[in-house]
Amino acid sequence: MECDVCVWGGTVLTMDGQFSLHDPGYVAVRDGVIVGVGAIGGAGMGADGRLGAPARSRADATHGAARGAPGNASSSASGSAPDCGGWRARETVDARGTIVMPGYVNTHTHISMSPFRGAKEDSKDRLTRFIFPLEKRMVRPELVYDGALFTIAEMVRSGTTCFADMYYFEEEVGRAAARAGVRALVGETIVDFAAPDATAPYEGIARAERLVEEWRGHPLVRGIIAPHAPYTVDAEHLRAIADLAEKLDAAVMMHIAEMDFEHARFSAEHGSVLRYLDTTGILSPRLIAAHMLYLDDADIELAATRGIAIAHCPGSNAKSGRPISPAWRLGEAGAPVGLGTDGPLSGNTMDMQTVVSLYPKLQKVREGRRDLVSARDALIAATKGGARVLGLDGQIGSIEPGKAADLQIIDLDDFNTLPAHDWYSAAVYSLQAHNVRDTMVAGSFVMRNRKLRFADEAELKKRLLFHAHQSSGLIESLLAEGR
Amino acid sequence: MECDVCVWGGTVLTMDGQFSLHDPGYVAVRDGVIVGVGAIGGAGMGADGRLGAPARSRADATHGAARGAPGNASSSASGSAPDCGGWRARETVDARGTIVMPGYVNTHTHISMSPFRGAKEDSKDRLTRFIFPLEKRMVRPELVYDGALFTIAEMVRSGTTCFADMYYFEEEVGRAAARAGVRALVGETIVDFAAPDATAPYEGIARAERLVEEWRGHPLVRGIIAPHAPYTVDAEHLRAIADLAEKLDAAVMMHIAEMDFEHARFSAEHGSVLRYLDTTGILSPRLIAAHMLYLDDADIELAATRGIAIAHCPGSNAKSGRPISPAWRLGEAGAPVGLGTDGPLSGNTMDMQTVVSLYPKLQKVREGRRDLVSARDALIAATKGGARVLGLDGQIGSIEPGKAADLQIIDLDDFNTLPAHDWYSAAVYSLQAHNVRDTMVAGSFVMRNRKLRFADEAELKKRLLFHAHQSSGLIESLLAEGR
Repeated sequence: MECDVCVWGGTVLTMDGQFSLHDPGYVAVRDGVIVGVGAIGGAGMGADGRLGAPARSRADATHGAARGAPGNASSSASGSAPDCGGWRARETVDARGTIVMPGYVNTHTHISMSPFRGAKEDSKDRLTRFIFPLEKRMVRPELVYDGALFTIAEMVRSGTTCFADMYYFEEEVGRAAARAGVRALVGETIVDFAAPDATAPYEGIARAERLVEEWRGHPLVRGIIAPHAPYTVDAEHLRAIADLAEKLDAAVMMHIAEMDFEHARFSAEHGSVLRYLDTTGILSPRLIAAHMLYLDDADIELAATRGIAIAHCPGSNAKSGRPISPAWRLGEAGAPVGLGTDGPLSGNTMDMQTVVSLYPKLQKVREGRRDLVSARDALIAATKGGARVLGLDGQIGSIEPGKAADLQIIDLDDFNTLPAHDWYSAAVYSLQAHNVRDTMVAGSFVMRNRKLRFADEAELKKRLLFHAHQSSGLIESLLAEGR
Repeated sequence: MECDVCVWGGTVLTMDGQFSLHDPGYVAVRDGVIVGVGAIGGAGMGADGRLGAPARSRADATHGAARGAPGNASSSASGSAPDCGGWRARETVDARGTIVMPGYVNTHTHISMSPFRGAKEDSKDRLTRFIFPLEKRMVRPELVYDGALFTIAEMVRSGTTCFADMYYFEEEVGRAAARAGVRALVGETIVDFAAPDATAPYEGIARAERLVEEWRGHPLVRGIIAPHAPYTVDAEHLRAIADLAEKLDAAVMMHIAEMDFEHARFSAEHGSVLRYLDTTGILSPRLIAAHMLYLDDADIELAATRGIAIAHCPGSNAKSGRPISPAWRLGEAGAPVGLGTDGPLSGNTMDMQTVVSLYPKLQKVREGRRDLVSARDALIAATKGGARVLGLDGQIGSIEPGKAADLQIIDLDDFNTLPAHDWYSAAVYSLQAHNVRDTMVAGSFVMRNRKLRFADEAELKKRLLFHAHQSSGLIESLLAEGR
């Protein structure tokens, strides 16, 4: 049996149904798809990730190269191949001393906002008084594309292989994702005012329809429909969007129950934001609901009953001083829960390591219990759970034969990563963005040995700074107006 | 005027009383002490860090090398020196494209616990049922020294220049800090049981006294006294410790109001943990109180009145599912507030970047307000505030003439750091451990271009893994006993 690539010798956290853990193990890839996964010959195999087994193999694995290295574990194809479960690989990638796990799935982003990152933090009514006016004047197709490609670089460098985005000129985000070779759901934003890419309210609906059609059939990029929020899209248009989503067979992403004023407004008449939305038909398994902060028990039940999926953004929400989302309770009720960074103006860094570590911490604080959202639960949310939220769990989210080869390879040989008594604890609480060595999407490396494959890094930074520089003058004048 | 080193061309966040910001600027160092700070010739100078001024210089600064580079901005001493405020430097360090700011002060650690990192997360009664028995059997001087030196490497690599520690065989932590050349308060732990370094309860008191005397007069390391907690040191011994601290002129560090059972026990008779402690005389300006979670308004007032200092550890507390400390309220009441990672079993990574970003987020969540603990406030807590907590604010915590040259130089040329519309936002919300390029303590580089100066990195890792490997068998048997 022949395959294209064998990722060989790392500790493989499969995140499959049994949480199989191969230590050391291999992953065989052919035509972008995982064709084989397992332990490699002779060496021990940790049973299921509980402390006992991995603890013993930990020191061996982190000693890495000191352990039973074969003659030709390299990226070369010649000579007798190392054991890869019977697969003959054209390329063998030496992964000794690493964790091999599914790439992160970032379920809620606005990646083109990178030129504005860090501007006007901590200001009151930041969204309406500062961000909307800034976007109206600055957001053009070129900025959306350059901003997106820059952030994709940041995401790929931190192990993210798939993201779900919403913004304006969203076709440019699709183009950036396609160029980079990463997986994406790209959502055109719909609002009740003249957006940066629209001359009239709700033009986004027509743009979203075109976007979904434009990307239909693309192997990595898919268009979705993104009504901004309950307070910027009215009930009538939400009904139309629900129908359109059905017609197009497309997903819908929306900010829900994120803002205090939104909560106050819809609670008055309907009891809650979610119960209001239920009158519009938008609550369905097609819906990716970002944030979901102001919810009571009836809302949690309603979310689960309607089958909506949750994009939980703990870092962004906390930075805005908002209540902690009942994400754990939503999951317990049966809703799919994934994690997201939100945009660079909200969460600042776009790495999932920060978010996956914050998620259990904040849920434990919210519930006053340390025994919920284990490290393994958190890693599920950042991988397989996120895939389920995006409706891609048949394709990605775990390392199993038949799934796309969307992987990250994490170098454990650093001062923040050693030792790894428990693989899941290490993956959730110790790893940082810079520990990711390689990132693979659909069997192709988008980053290898920390070098991007899809763009010149200096050029990406230069383009980002061009837009950031142009924004900075405008930021000052907006500030002056606000005084 | 001659000096040893000029750090030249970076954006200098001084954190002085006026928050002077020199962009670009220089820092001149002689005999380990800062002798000059200012803007460099011709270039603009950001006034005070508000968005307006730095926003304009941001793109220039992050373009770095493209801007007005002089002929010889290098580490070489020859040729005509670049402008350094009139100082002639033997060595000029090119800091263009970087932020130069005070090193982080980590106010609460147990750095020798690194061999145990990640073990038995999320377990009930982890401290008493797992950590204490593990320590009793594993903690020996060699492990304390090796574990400490490893963690010092992690801390130095993330810009920390000073830490306050408490553990057993604490003289070994002092030796590790002295070897590395970093600043440290080292606290011998006192408990009411036979500790790993004691054959009888309270032997730690005599050990602590010896420790304080042993390090008296050392330029970087100072001994302190560390009663473990109100539930492991009784009132009588707390009184004796308060007297000893007075006699030795030493600081005291203790875990306070961290545990639910502690809160319940002391509240019953005294109303609160802090009001109980006030009966023992331990509440004084000598006291560094770690955690401080279960506090009511009267406790906050009492803490401020007694002048005790707060070592706030938001990451560690959240991971344990505990209430968020009223750290902002303590600061408003007048108590000095610094930040800490806690030990590697509690916060896992020992970098301050994670903690300084978490601090404002959790305080905003706790208070339900986004307009408190600004990015600048957070950076104060991680530098100058921490220095004040440790009683070292006359010496460190800001970049001012007369203070020790404890600095970090942060490379901004990365995908998580660009752009920097606001320097304080960038420093608090965007920076990650790997962005730190150089770390200097008392005028000497302990890390330069990400390479440690004080030890061989491979050797440090090897020693750490030796102890981790020895622990792992024991962890398994402790688990088996617990079943």
